[in-house]
Amino acid sequence: MSPKPLNPHPDRLFPADPKTRDITRELYEAVKDLPIISPHGHVPVEWIADDIPFSDPTSLLLTPDHYTNRMLHGAAGVELADLGVPVGSKISEEQSRAAFRLLCENWKYLRGTPVQFWFESEFHDVFGVKVRPSAETADQIYDQIQVCIEQPEYRPRALYKRFNIEALATTDDPCDDLAKHQQLADDPDWDGRVMPTFRPDKYLEPAREGWVDLTHKLGEVADVDVSSYKGHLEAMRTRRLYFKERGAVSTDHSHADARCERLSDTEAERLYKSALKGEISVAEGDALRRHMVNDQARLAVEDGLVMTMHPAVVRNHDPHAFAKYGADVGGDVPHSVEFSRALQPILAEYGNHDNFQLVVFTIDETTYSRELAPLAGYYRGLYVGAPWWFIDEADAIMRYRRAVTGYAGFYKTSGFIDDTRAYCSIPARHDVSRRVDSAFLGSLVAEHRLQMDEALEVAVDLVTTQPRKVFKL
Amino acid sequence: MSPKPLNPHPDRLFPADPKTRDITRELYEAVKDLPIISPHGHVPVEWIADDIPFSDPTSLLLTPDHYTNRMLHGAAGVELADLGVPVGSKISEEQSRAAFRLLCENWKYLRGTPVQFWFESEFHDVFGVKVRPSAETADQIYDQIQVCIEQPEYRPRALYKRFNIEALATTDDPCDDLAKHQQLADDPDWDGRVMPTFRPDKYLEPAREGWVDLTHKLGEVADVDVSSYKGHLEAMRTRRLYFKERGAVSTDHSHADARCERLSDTEAERLYKSALKGEISVAEGDALRRHMVNDQARLAVEDGLVMTMHPAVVRNHDPHAFAKYGADVGGDVPHSVEFSRALQPILAEYGNHDNFQLVVFTIDETTYSRELAPLAGYYRGLYVGAPWWFIDEADAIMRYRRAVTGYAGFYKTSGFIDDTRAYCSIPARHDVSRRVDSAFLGSLVAEHRLQMDEALEVAVDLVTTQPRKVFKL
Amino acid sequence: MSPKPLNPHPDRLFPADPKTRDITRELYEAVKDLPIISPHGHVPVEWIADDIPFSDPTSLLLTPDHYTNRMLHGAAGVELADLGVPVGSKISEEQSRAAFRLLCENWKYLRGTPVQFWFESEFHDVFGVKVRPSAETADQIYDQIQVCIEQPEYRPRALYKRFNIEALATTDDPCDDLAKHQQLADDPDWDGRVMPTFRPDKYLEPAREGWVDLTHKLGEVADVDVSSYKGHLEAMRTRRLYFKERGAVSTDHSHADARCERLSDTEAERLYKSALKGEISVAEGDALRRHMVNDQARLAVEDGLVMTMHPAVVRNHDPHAFAKYGADVGGDVPHSVEFSRALQPILAEYGNHDNFQLVVFTIDETTYSRELAPLAGYYRGLYVGAPWWFIDEADAIMRYRRAVTGYAGFYKTSGFIDDTRAYCSIPARHDVSRRVDSAFLGSLVAEHRLQMDEALEVAVDLVTTQPRKVFKL
Repeated sequence: MSPKPLNPHPDRLFPADPKTRDITRELYEAVKDLPIISPHGHVPVEWIADDIPFSDPTSLLLTPDHYTNRMLHGAAGVELADLGVPVGSKISEEQSRAAFRLLCENWKYLRGTPVQFWFESEFHDVFGVKVRPSAETADQIYDQIQVCIEQPEYRPRALYKRFNIEALATTDDPCDDLAKHQQLADDPDWDGRVMPTFRPDKYLEPAREGWVDLTHKLGEVADVDVSSYKGHLEAMRTRRLYFKERGAVSTDHSHADARCERLSDTEAERLYKSALKGEISVAEGDALRRHMVNDQARLAVEDGLVMTMHPAVVRNHDPHAFAKYGADVGGDVPHSVEFSRALQPILAEYGNHDNFQLVVFTIDETTYSRELAPLAGYYRGLYVGAPWWFIDEADAIMRYRRAVTGYAGFYKTSGFIDDTRAYCSIPARHDVSRRVDSAFLGSLVAEHRLQMDEALEVAVDLVTTQPRKVFKL
Repeated sequence: MSPKPLNPHPDRLFPADPKTRDITRELYEAVKDLPIISPHGHVPVEWIADDIPFSDPTSLLLTPDHYTNRMLHGAAGVELADLGVPVGSKISEEQSRAAFRLLCENWKYLRGTPVQFWFESEFHDVFGVKVRPSAETADQIYDQIQVCIEQPEYRPRALYKRFNIEALATTDDPCDDLAKHQQLADDPDWDGRVMPTFRPDKYLEPAREGWVDLTHKLGEVADVDVSSYKGHLEAMRTRRLYFKERGAVSTDHSHADARCERLSDTEAERLYKSALKGEISVAEGDALRRHMVNDQARLAVEDGLVMTMHPAVVRNHDPHAFAKYGADVGGDVPHSVEFSRALQPILAEYGNHDNFQLVVFTIDETTYSRELAPLAGYYRGLYVGAPWWFIDEADAIMRYRRAVTGYAGFYKTSGFIDDTRAYCSIPARHDVSRRVDSAFLGSLVAEHRLQMDEALEVAVDLVTTQPRKVFKL
Repeated sequence: MSPKPLNPHPDRLFPADPKTRDITRELYEAVKDLPIISPHGHVPVEWIADDIPFSDPTSLLLTPDHYTNRMLHGAAGVELADLGVPVGSKISEEQSRAAFRLLCENWKYLRGTPVQFWFESEFHDVFGVKVRPSAETADQIYDQIQVCIEQPEYRPRALYKRFNIEALATTDDPCDDLAKHQQLADDPDWDGRVMPTFRPDKYLEPAREGWVDLTHKLGEVADVDVSSYKGHLEAMRTRRLYFKERGAVSTDHSHADARCERLSDTEAERLYKSALKGEISVAEGDALRRHMVNDQARLAVEDGLVMTMHPAVVRNHDPHAFAKYGADVGGDVPHSVEFSRALQPILAEYGNHDNFQLVVFTIDETTYSRELAPLAGYYRGLYVGAPWWFIDEADAIMRYRRAVTGYAGFYKTSGFIDDTRAYCSIPARHDVSRRVDSAFLGSLVAEHRLQMDEALEVAVDLVTTQPRKVFKL
């Protein structure tokens, strides 16, 4: 039996109704080739700064992608180690090929998922693969990709150009010296834009193991005395500015909840000192963290960095996998979240301030129509983040538009966020979003809820002016 | 460039699939011209009782509509004061015109929202506007509407007739003497129906500021000694009957939660007395409020007034706007709510009683399939309220039908509620509901889940017999 | 007026778009005649073991079906007693006929519900009814069904064959001797498969009334000393094995929440002894119950019985109906539930173990994309249960596929569960699921998200290999 072809249809994700499809196609045509703005993600800056050739298909496409790893683990029973996890493991060519075979053999488990969609796009559009992945075709596809990545036109910078990326954000530790970002900025041969993002989560969790050491490190790097909370705040201010001077446009925050009520200064100092002594309770740690997050919003009013938030995830849900492989291997699981009351302290104080912009991401879709659209429709500085992580797929993106548009419109949404460390999937991910937004707009036009000229303007705005405005690019 | 036309399509909101659209059109034809029953809303009775001409487009269409104000504030950055907020502010013709211009200039921010849909309908159908709102057309539209409202056929009573309203409810304070309602009832030239609604919220929040004064006022107006809880209950009974005698058919309740468990009589009296002394705690205030709500249900069994409930909103979320403009300016934000356990005390006691009818509205869509449809499918007196406020738009109405119909059917739903103080938007709002219900029924017929004769009967019932039954009209 | 015909359309529940419908039809053709696997339900084993003829249409179709009873009670105001409730009530032929008339007269209240869909299918496909139920046709339909059930081909075993059932599970008390299951197994004339299911709920609620007596009974039946928790655990182990030896493949669990954290052995023993003395508090009872549920998971690793869970229901919401008719008469109401944190203790310990399989059902649809799909995509042993009870209808099944597929795919879902005691509705219920799954897959193919050969394989897998794998059949 000859292998099945891999031939992604140009009308993928478009509504089946012929008239709606025609409109959708026209809208999509207007946006499909526009540059990619990726204001939040996890691609290592080194890849681009040093323009190092990728070594093999598995460590390029499979190992760093926890979206895929977890599905192969959960649905196909594959061991994470057999996929090269954790990232950075030394794997032989044979192991790499075997891992890639596991992906192809278990292709059916990915049916209907965005993971399959992304791989199909990458394989076909980036590497020219023309056969459907399977046990039979695994080696052939592996070889074809291997040949590609040995060519100069598959090195990270060349792909950056080919992917038509306008701006790409990394995610960075507040103590990072951002040397590689600087190296890129100083490189006369580089005319792209790679921005660091200030992500202080673990510095804002005073009851967590390791916080005291992190705090001392922060003080050192910022060259600020952090023996008081006031000093800690000053160190944060310093490092945010350091990031901003090196191109950062946003800070990113993920905690167990979205709360941010302030403490009195006295209470904040008391808890902070208790934390430095390692004596803070979990509840006190949460209270101080919420105060600290509130202060991040205050600092955002000062320095104008956009604040992004994506709370409510049980990190490292599987302690055995965490012990074996560390964090970020697919064992993070969302839970429900509350925003209406939680965000009030910062929205009431800063939510209509000219300099303040907050983007909230969630996997709890119930909050879109109940909390986020109502809040974003009223507060000037608040934007509803695009569906993120487990829900950055076609059906959920459509649900998001249908839940948010009614009372926040299109212009209080964030634009698409790929949030990925899988570099070659960036175009495919943005493409899904463009297709689904076109389909949504197409349905509005087909149902006479919007005129075509208005829909065209919105479609273009959503991938150009809107992300630029939301992320101050 | 000549302005874009404003020309709402007759098939607006109808499914794109041609066959489903044909069926939908036929269903809609059967209901589109039927009279409007509006059993819950906020139009001032004075408008109709005194039939005063409207002064200008802004104070008629824009200022009183917090749906619109909040979007212009949140998405376009407009100051509320520039829209004439708060209602009743004295504004000059120039200010009125400028406010109206803000609406038209920022038209794009309303794309895809029901606010835009309603305005398009009002502008086109009520005032004959033929151009799309924009910076360029703002003055022209303003002038055209101004000319209209100076004509007798645009006075409130004439519009009432033209809008084909069968019954319209206002929302009123329990101490209101309903003089304007009486004036209308006594008017030999008036043959419409405007009903007061008994809304005792703030009298049932014993820990809230001002409650003691309100209670004394209630006692005076009812001519009942309210120094005991028993007296308070008697005063409520008296005022409810006062309302009923003047045409009220329902009472309306909105608190932070839907709970309604009873206290012992002794405990109720103890808390009540503590509240009168201003000594009640917040938690005790909630406990007494829940008991009072339960007593409202008891009274409903006695007097037969329908009980409506729409809980779980953070009122005046933005304290700065509240300080500046007062309540109801767009800063209310929903939060999640629980009904299954919360409503058990009144459902278990009164839920199958012949005289008791409860309609529950929610913005927490998760409760439709999980709680409200299961409850309403079982308890005779419970009806699932139509999508309300932030979710009274096409997509949410469709989701409501898809979530509720499976296990409560059509005949345990409330009929549409416009809940508006924007008088001229009433036909447009009911029209959205009729279009979407037709579309839902049309899809059931197209998918052979319902026969056409059954769908036609349901479509008509939903705007005639059903609201009459639910609100005892 | 001649009665309306009853003539269910072959394309029921298929999408209206012609192209999508054609694809859907082709997919449905591939699965519609495949055998029914029903791994969870409530049909009494006696019916099949003794192959007793059914007595009358009401006690066969109406009285045991609380889906229908509650709708007739809640929407049409019918008294439950008039429908023959509770099951086992002695009713005369006249009463039976009158009850059946109530169903037919109130037919309109069932429009758009799955209850109407099931009855239409049963009436038409099983009993050859050709007229729509109504006051006028009630007696005629009653008579026609009565004639049928007096024929040998309408006895339970004949229907089992005709319904093309491959396997059918009952739900049984842990102390049940399963004699009727044994009788069936020993019957040389029987070649079907009826499996008991171990349902220990009430034995795992140490603070509930009656628990002490149940525990003593459990000890006796298991012949194990249950004066210690260790003994209780051993008794559970013994009874589970007893069930397994008699064909059981799963255990079933429904409690107020999904929590399952362990206690120390000492604490478990302490609480257990306190419970035996009737001195345990409600909170302690919950704590011990969660430990016991955790132990059920441990036992599942030992004996390999699949664990199913469907938590978060307020049982007997209406205490008056409960007092009059007992349990299971329609007064159960779901509430919200949390899984991400609740299930962590058993998922982290057993969730990737080769012998462990857990299927979680919910009526809280919010958990599908937020919690269950993320968890099932990662943990090998976890499967997302099909929409159950109030949400086992077309729209909810479609929402389930759209919520779960993105990050758990098709192969971490359970296959359809009818969960019914309405024997004749089993084919209709499975048919709904097959139609909707075909419609979902058809839409994926029409939108070029899946190739036709892949969709066909998935459609067949979902009713064959998948339930066999999930329930170890």
